[in-house]
Amino acid sequence: MTRPIITLTTDFGLSDHFVGVMKGVILGIHPAAQVIDISHGVQPYAIADGAFTIAQTYRYFPRKTIHVVVVDPGVGSTRRPLLAEMAGHYFVAPDNGVLSMVFAREKPRVRHITSERYFLHPVSRTFHGRDVFSPVAAHLASGVTPAKFGELIADYLRAPFDKPTPTGRQRWTGTILKADHFGNLITNFHSDQFPAIRTHAFSMNVGSQAVTRLAQTFSECTPGELCLIIGSSGYLEIAASQSSAAQALGCSAGSPVELTIY
Amino acid sequence: MTRPIITLTTDFGLSDHFVGVMKGVILGIHPAAQVIDISHGVQPYAIADGAFTIAQTYRYFPRKTIHVVVVDPGVGSTRRPLLAEMAGHYFVAPDNGVLSMVFAREKPRVRHITSERYFLHPVSRTFHGRDVFSPVAAHLASGVTPAKFGELIADYLRAPFDKPTPTGRQRWTGTILKADHFGNLITNFHSDQFPAIRTHAFSMNVGSQAVTRLAQTFSECTPGELCLIIGSSGYLEIAASQSSAAQALGCSAGSPVELTIY
Amino acid sequence: MTRPIITLTTDFGLSDHFVGVMKGVILGIHPAAQVIDISHGVQPYAIADGAFTIAQTYRYFPRKTIHVVVVDPGVGSTRRPLLAEMAGHYFVAPDNGVLSMVFAREKPRVRHITSERYFLHPVSRTFHGRDVFSPVAAHLASGVTPAKFGELIADYLRAPFDKPTPTGRQRWTGTILKADHFGNLITNFHSDQFPAIRTHAFSMNVGSQAVTRLAQTFSECTPGELCLIIGSSGYLEIAASQSSAAQALGCSAGSPVELTIY
Repeated sequence: MTRPIITLTTDFGLSDHFVGVMKGVILGIHPAAQVIDISHGVQPYAIADGAFTIAQTYRYFPRKTIHVVVVDPGVGSTRRPLLAEMAGHYFVAPDNGVLSMVFAREKPRVRHITSERYFLHPVSRTFHGRDVFSPVAAHLASGVTPAKFGELIADYLRAPFDKPTPTGRQRWTGTILKADHFGNLITNFHSDQFPAIRTHAFSMNVGSQAVTRLAQTFSECTPGELCLIIGSSGYLEIAASQSSAAQALGCSAGSPVELTIY
Repeated sequence: MTRPIITLTTDFGLSDHFVGVMKGVILGIHPAAQVIDISHGVQPYAIADGAFTIAQTYRYFPRKTIHVVVVDPGVGSTRRPLLAEMAGHYFVAPDNGVLSMVFAREKPRVRHITSERYFLHPVSRTFHGRDVFSPVAAHLASGVTPAKFGELIADYLRAPFDKPTPTGRQRWTGTILKADHFGNLITNFHSDQFPAIRTHAFSMNVGSQAVTRLAQTFSECTPGELCLIIGSSGYLEIAASQSSAAQALGCSAGSPVELTIY
Repeated sequence: MTRPIITLTTDFGLSDHFVGVMKGVILGIHPAAQVIDISHGVQPYAIADGAFTIAQTYRYFPRKTIHVVVVDPGVGSTRRPLLAEMAGHYFVAPDNGVLSMVFAREKPRVRHITSERYFLHPVSRTFHGRDVFSPVAAHLASGVTPAKFGELIADYLRAPFDKPTPTGRQRWTGTILKADHFGNLITNFHSDQFPAIRTHAFSMNVGSQAVTRLAQTFSECTPGELCLIIGSSGYLEIAASQSSAAQALGCSAGSPVELTIY
């Protein structure tokens, strides 16, 4: 018997009790669960960052893994809690678009969680990570079937985070999804959608700079040179070898970029 | 047979080897232990922050959990190491007040740990997290009974972190316990002690500002508006919806606040 | 049957999906593995910091632990992936010197990992933590013998991170290995190599300051006073009790220090 895996992805940071409380709630309900941190460093309230983080990660885990994703600026409002089944995995998250980049790749079956018997009571207005999402995940891990949590719905939110907009012939505007720990700027241009980048001249404009070179590896660039990389996620990244492109360009999540292919 | 759970709460941060070493020591003594990080982001040397963090968290874990709490500015001095039993949980920590907010809620049985045979030798002067607290927790997890570690004591330190001081008729001064990751300022006023806040006009003065509105949820406030929230911990928090109250007010842990109820 | 332990030490930080992906890859291949974070806060690209972190930590873990160390500025270049066996532990890391401080203490048997059947395909150019090091560690944990991964080699890189250079009679120059979370400056002078420090007058010069006092504990110094401590790692540390020596001196990893013993 393997132990069920529950992953956590939040914007709670690591300096507070929030994450420890979620782990306590899960282990209090199902002590055999294996709780794995994906990241608690999602930028506060940044749904696109959370969406990208879980979309890059879930498929490496074994089937039946339960992924809890809490980036939840609308906590306490009427936004719904969701339980989604996709690709043999489970996802527990608010209905605010944070699962959009997983929805876009898989065939989701999505439920609106309404069975309050699986919540921690009294349910607070500000910490559903503790009172709703963690206990639902733990009960699911302990064998409660998905249908017990609520009805299937079709009108859950899907946000188009990774769809650059065409603005001309061979020209698109997009955005920076996030600046990673190394200062690489991950754009919302996926290399599969823009194969011409490998064979044609191009210009990726960001701030006042134009990046025109595609490098295969970071070590191929001279330190500090700006270049485009097909990142390990498949998205185009603006990188400065061994230094921070984010700092060099003064860009961060949400900054606009423009791609022209010649 | 479930695996014993050992939680870690420290001010060691995550950029050094300290936390990894504690995990190694625990698993080296008792490989079946399940080590769970609560937080290593307690503000350095901030005993009140550590006291708040563990007090908010322990009760969600299953009974028999062993909580190791190391915020220890006096390491190497004569302060005593403690093993406390409360509410079916175990706590291993220095005798410097860091367990005060748990002591205040439970009926503690507290021992002075003196059995050096359970320490790692030679015991360093600067890293009792490695040499004292972790090995004691691991030996406890492996079945050593509490009485083997030392004698019961009654004169352990209890610090009044969450007791605002009356300064007039319906007026109290208190402090900020901590600024959380979102910049919410958690005061040491517990809502259970100040029920009138829900029904009467009030003013929570902090810095040069007066907060006079009690909101039910963050989403009820307009972005950036300062309001009071009954936090998920039960303490009154000064919040600025989707932005940082700490930054807006220039306040942090230890800053004074004054509450007047009209 | 105990569960195999795999530790992770990287410079990936905690704000991205990288660490979560490595855990997913490991659990996807060997769900019974127990993944333990040592630190992901190694300074980006700082091989000496990574070398120090793993060298301080591995020996506390039980034998047969598998340590994955990814500080890898040369990812995608021709630097080799290594599997090393030392002191009953396994290490999976790039051949860039990051294991040097472990090599210096133990009798290593080192293999060049060449069996691509244990990699994740397609192997990216930028994320060997995901595609090479994690899957190799997981296959090793699941019982693949070391010899299956590649041939023994002798010409792996050993960097002299902790060897101060003599510059005169009883005078040496060295460097700061790292500033820890508390701002203590860990030098590359090991107390075992400089026993005279305990009995003779000395001057440790750093920036424009000279530190001339050896303290036994942090609490022995007056707050803010600069003193030398024999750290829990055995290395000499420049500390300022309850405040940051790094900040007071404006020093960080790589800063030069000079020791004179009188």
